[in-house]
Amino acid sequence: MNSDKLFSCIKKKKSYLCIGLDSAIDKLPEHLRSKKNPAFRFNKYIIDATAHLAVAYKPNLAFYESRGIEGWTDLEFTVNYIKSHYPEIFVIADAKRGDIGNTSAMYAKAFFKNMNFDAVTVAPYMGEDSVKPFLGFKDKYVIILALTSNQSAADFQYFTSKDNKQLFSEVIDTSKKWGTKDNIMYVVGATKAPMLAVIRKQIPGHFILVPGVGAQGGDLQEVSEYGMNKKCGLLINASRSIIFAGNDHDFAQKAAEEAKNLQQQMEGILYKKGLL
Amino acid sequence: MNSDKLFSCIKKKKSYLCIGLDSAIDKLPEHLRSKKNPAFRFNKYIIDATAHLAVAYKPNLAFYESRGIEGWTDLEFTVNYIKSHYPEIFVIADAKRGDIGNTSAMYAKAFFKNMNFDAVTVAPYMGEDSVKPFLGFKDKYVIILALTSNQSAADFQYFTSKDNKQLFSEVIDTSKKWGTKDNIMYVVGATKAPMLAVIRKQIPGHFILVPGVGAQGGDLQEVSEYGMNKKCGLLINASRSIIFAGNDHDFAQKAAEEAKNLQQQMEGILYKKGLL
Repeated sequence: MNSDKLFSCIKKKKSYLCIGLDSAIDKLPEHLRSKKNPAFRFNKYIIDATAHLAVAYKPNLAFYESRGIEGWTDLEFTVNYIKSHYPEIFVIADAKRGDIGNTSAMYAKAFFKNMNFDAVTVAPYMGEDSVKPFLGFKDKYVIILALTSNQSAADFQYFTSKDNKQLFSEVIDTSKKWGTKDNIMYVVGATKAPMLAVIRKQIPGHFILVPGVGAQGGDLQEVSEYGMNKKCGLLINASRSIIFAGNDHDFAQKAAEEAKNLQQQMEGILYKKGLL
Repeated sequence: MNSDKLFSCIKKKKSYLCIGLDSAIDKLPEHLRSKKNPAFRFNKYIIDATAHLAVAYKPNLAFYESRGIEGWTDLEFTVNYIKSHYPEIFVIADAKRGDIGNTSAMYAKAFFKNMNFDAVTVAPYMGEDSVKPFLGFKDKYVIILALTSNQSAADFQYFTSKDNKQLFSEVIDTSKKWGTKDNIMYVVGATKAPMLAVIRKQIPGHFILVPGVGAQGGDLQEVSEYGMNKKCGLLINASRSIIFAGNDHDFAQKAAEEAKNLQQQMEGILYKKGLL
C-alpha cells in the first residue's frame, strides 16, 4: 500500500474511517466470552459488518497480549482474516514499539513479515535508529507518535526548546527526513484538533492517523477541517464507540450503524472538499 | 520485590548483573534450532549456568514476538522457569511499552498478572497516564526510559528547553513524582556513563538499569563509578556478550564464564565501595 492507493480506497469507499479493534475480553458480548478464540470471533463479526464502511482496522496489541498465547492467536487469526477477505484494507498494528536498531528490526519482522500488517505505530523517544528498520519494507508504513490524544500527552510532548519549538514538532520535522509520505505517517490525537492545522503545514503530504474520535471526545468535523489535505491525508480512528456500540446478539449490527454514521459524515466532508 | 530486597540479593550474590535474554533464533547454537521451544531450551541452559552470578534476567520481547505464538510460548515458559526455580531473581520484561491509560492497564495486566514479571520497561513519550497503571501493582516496578544507549538517543532525548534542561532530565524530574524508588527505576545507557553522575543527583535513591555494557561498548568500571549509590542502585545489563559468548554445545559454559568475569569485577567494585 502507498499513499495514492490508500486515497483511491478512500474515494471508492467514501470513507477515511479506521476501526480500532480494542477487543477487551471483558467487554465482549457475554455469549462470545466462553467460546474458543472469543476476540477473533468478535472481530470477525465486526469486520464482516463494517468492512464496506472502513478503509483500515487497527488492533490495539495490548488487548491481545494481555491474554498471552490465546490473545496472540486471536490477533494472528484477525489479521489473516482481514487480509484474505478484504485485501484492500489497511491493517495497523497499534503497538507503539520503539527500541534499539537490532531490536526494532525484530519487531519489524514480527509485524510486517510474520503477520502481514501494513503499518505499525512507533514511539519516537529513542530516535532514528529505532524507526529506520521499519522503513526497509516495501509498501509498509511506520506511524510515528507525534501528539497523542491522552491527557498527559502534555507532560513531555509540549516540552519547549530555546527557539520556542515543542517536542512533538521537533519529532515531526526531524523524522520526516527519515522517509517519505509513502512509508511514514503520524499520530495526532483528535483531542488536539487545532494543532492539526499547524502540523498539516509541516507535513502537507503525509497521512495522519487521528485516534480519539468517539469515546475519547474528539470531533470529526473539526478534525477534518483542520487536518485534511488534497488527497484526504487522514485516517480517523474510532474504537470503543463502534465495536462496543451494542453488547448483545446484535452487537455487529450496532457497530455497523455507528460506523455508517461516521462514514456518512465523512462522505459529506469529502464531497464538500471536492475530493469525490 | 522492593529496593531493599534487591540490594540484599545483590550483597548475597556479590553481583548487580542483569542478563539480557535477547534469544534471537538465528543466533542460537545449531543443535537447538530445530528442537521444539528452541529459545526456551536455550534460555533454560543459560539460566541454570548463570543464575548464581546474576540478580536479574531481562528477556527482550521483540525476540519472542517476532516468532508469533511459538515465541510467546517460549517467553512464558522462560518466566515461569525462572520464577519457579530461582524465585529471588528479578525478571524484567524489556517491552518499552507506553500507551493511553486503559491500554497501559492491559499491558500491566499482561506482564504483572498473567506472566509474573517483576518489572516492565516503558517509554515516557505519552506522559503520566501511560505509566500510572503499572504503578498500582505491589512489589512491581516500571522502568522508564530516560537516556538510552543507542546512537540516535540524541535525536530527541537531548532536546533542550529554554532554561537549558534536556528532555531526558525533564522526564526524570517529572516522572519521579509519580511513584517512589520502590516502584520506579530508570534506564540510562552505559554508553552515556558521564551523564550517570548528573542523573544520580536527580534520583539518589532509585535503581538505574544500565544496558549497553558488552556488545554495545559501555564500560563497567566507569558506569559503576558514576552511577552507584549507597545501596548499589545499579542493575547492569549485558545480553549478547554473555548469551552468545559461545555457539556450540558448550554455549552455556561459555556464557557462565563471561557472566563470571563480570560478576567478579562487580564483586571487586562493591567491595571497594564498602558495600559488602
